[in-house]
Amino acid sequence: MTTVLPPALHTAREAVDPALRAAVARLDPDTRRVCEYHFGWSNADGTPDGGGGKALRPAMVLLSARSVASEDPVAAAAAVELVHNFSLLHDDVMDGDTSRRHRPTAWTVFGKPAALLAGDALLALSTEILLEAPSRQAAAAALSLTTATRTLIAGQAADLDFERRAAVGLDECLRMAHDKTAALLACASSIGALFVGAPRETVTRLHAFGTELGMAFQLVDDLLGLWGDPEVTGKPVLSDLRTRKKSVPVVHALSSGTAAGERLLQLYAQAEPLTEDQLHEAAEMVQRAGSAEWTRLECERRLAAAHERLPDGQRAATESLTELAEFIVRRKL
Amino acid sequence: MTTVLPPALHTAREAVDPALRAAVARLDPDTRRVCEYHFGWSNADGTPDGGGGKALRPAMVLLSARSVASEDPVAAAAAVELVHNFSLLHDDVMDGDTSRRHRPTAWTVFGKPAALLAGDALLALSTEILLEAPSRQAAAAALSLTTATRTLIAGQAADLDFERRAAVGLDECLRMAHDKTAALLACASSIGALFVGAPRETVTRLHAFGTELGMAFQLVDDLLGLWGDPEVTGKPVLSDLRTRKKSVPVVHALSSGTAAGERLLQLYAQAEPLTEDQLHEAAEMVQRAGSAEWTRLECERRLAAAHERLPDGQRAATESLTELAEFIVRRKL
Repeated sequence: MTTVLPPALHTAREAVDPALRAAVARLDPDTRRVCEYHFGWSNADGTPDGGGGKALRPAMVLLSARSVASEDPVAAAAAVELVHNFSLLHDDVMDGDTSRRHRPTAWTVFGKPAALLAGDALLALSTEILLEAPSRQAAAAALSLTTATRTLIAGQAADLDFERRAAVGLDECLRMAHDKTAALLACASSIGALFVGAPRETVTRLHAFGTELGMAFQLVDDLLGLWGDPEVTGKPVLSDLRTRKKSVPVVHALSSGTAAGERLLQLYAQAEPLTEDQLHEAAEMVQRAGSAEWTRLECERRLAAAHERLPDGQRAATESLTELAEFIVRRKL
Repeated sequence: MTTVLPPALHTAREAVDPALRAAVARLDPDTRRVCEYHFGWSNADGTPDGGGGKALRPAMVLLSARSVASEDPVAAAAAVELVHNFSLLHDDVMDGDTSRRHRPTAWTVFGKPAALLAGDALLALSTEILLEAPSRQAAAAALSLTTATRTLIAGQAADLDFERRAAVGLDECLRMAHDKTAALLACASSIGALFVGAPRETVTRLHAFGTELGMAFQLVDDLLGLWGDPEVTGKPVLSDLRTRKKSVPVVHALSSGTAAGERLLQLYAQAEPLTEDQLHEAAEMVQRAGSAEWTRLECERRLAAAHERLPDGQRAATESLTELAEFIVRRKL
């Protein structure tokens, strides 16, 4: 378990924060206030706050560019972070989540319409700052980002659809994880290189690296959603079971054909809310079905596949990408 | 009063519909179903329906390009229509509107999360199809569209803000009308020319034409929201008063300093819902304050200003733009 943040995260935050803040400062006052709160830069009353996310995606963008050039594609890094936060703002409304990064979600503070508009605005801004950037590859980068955005939306649509369905296959569940999480990380891992004019082969390899890494990332998230430390995820333990989320380990267990899987199916089909005892039993069934172990191994496999995809390039950048990947996946497992 | 649709609308629909349908067909099945319903191409159960909007914005895009080239910037026309429909889908959720184009709104049929995702998807698609288009000006066009989108979002944010405030000035109300309606029409009126490589001066004039026309359009809409024919607007008469919307004629009356304005202020401040009699009284106060007349004259002034901005160019295209502008503004006034 790594507890120290990789230096690339700090560097990325320092590099990208000014661009992000400048982008958000373009918004109308109402929408700007919601975004500044959401990013953790201000409190609900508008007073400054020093918070903010982990800058994981910006770090990916900057590192992937460093592997081919000495230039920092800050606009691309900020654009990816804007899209990520667009999706957080909208997902929190759709899922009714009340807590994010240990604070009340934006919609609980400003209302749903304001939070939706803030998300819309961040999505529009992301395209805007990319296309304004002085790079001949700005349009190609914007196309990569908007395609990833559309995939992310498809993932969220599938996730919502799963909630309404009794039976979900493991394959479609993995596809949903790809769409919802890995597509944007694949874009984050390659758009920087694309932006600074890297050869197509390099961009493709970095994209594949990000896809595998994104899958590993989501699988870890799914495990944290069952047994994770609320200090890390900001969510209470067993929260995914409480909402009967069809995450990868759960779907693996449900479709395992084991007695434990059958019992989990019964619990998920129960009309009443699950009691605390039943929640612990459900988690135990995921273990017994071998699904926690399978998810952990699949995660390792994806991480190894990611490393294999990394292009040969500047050694330091590749090492930092590897370090970042390890950090992401070793969180509290 | 014009009742016959200008031929440009029919032409635009024919030209743009296939591109729009192909774009929407790229979406994941869940989101696609919502969009196809929203566009009026299918019923709630997925069976085909022949409906669809008026293709006003696509017609603007195609005509503005015709004034400088013989090329049809279909991708740009489809992209603007996608953004327009993104905003309709989201606005209907935020405003809680249950009827659009004489049918139940998408969120009432598919739920709010699905309608929000459909809007998100259309916004992402709009950038995607523009940037994929084989035009050297695709990136400039996409930037114009995304900037207009951001302005539109600011307008909706102001509109929501006005609902919570007692006092709204006429200037900020006109600014809101500009942001919410005129910005996208200005983009629609100029993006086609931009896309086919028209000189900057032409693009600027067409943009200014669209801004004035958009203002006229919104002012007509505001009048229709008070006295309009539900056959035309799809909204019941007096609907804007029922929801105490701060539209331009209402704000003009409220800030008129007249006795009628004072009475309207009392009615708008009333805690209980307005009775039918009170609704008619409120409409009468807007008349007596001279605000209906002022709005009508302002609308005429904007329309005249729009015509003055039209660049010299192919006579037929300019005439069609003029005809379209007249059609938009003469609806049932």
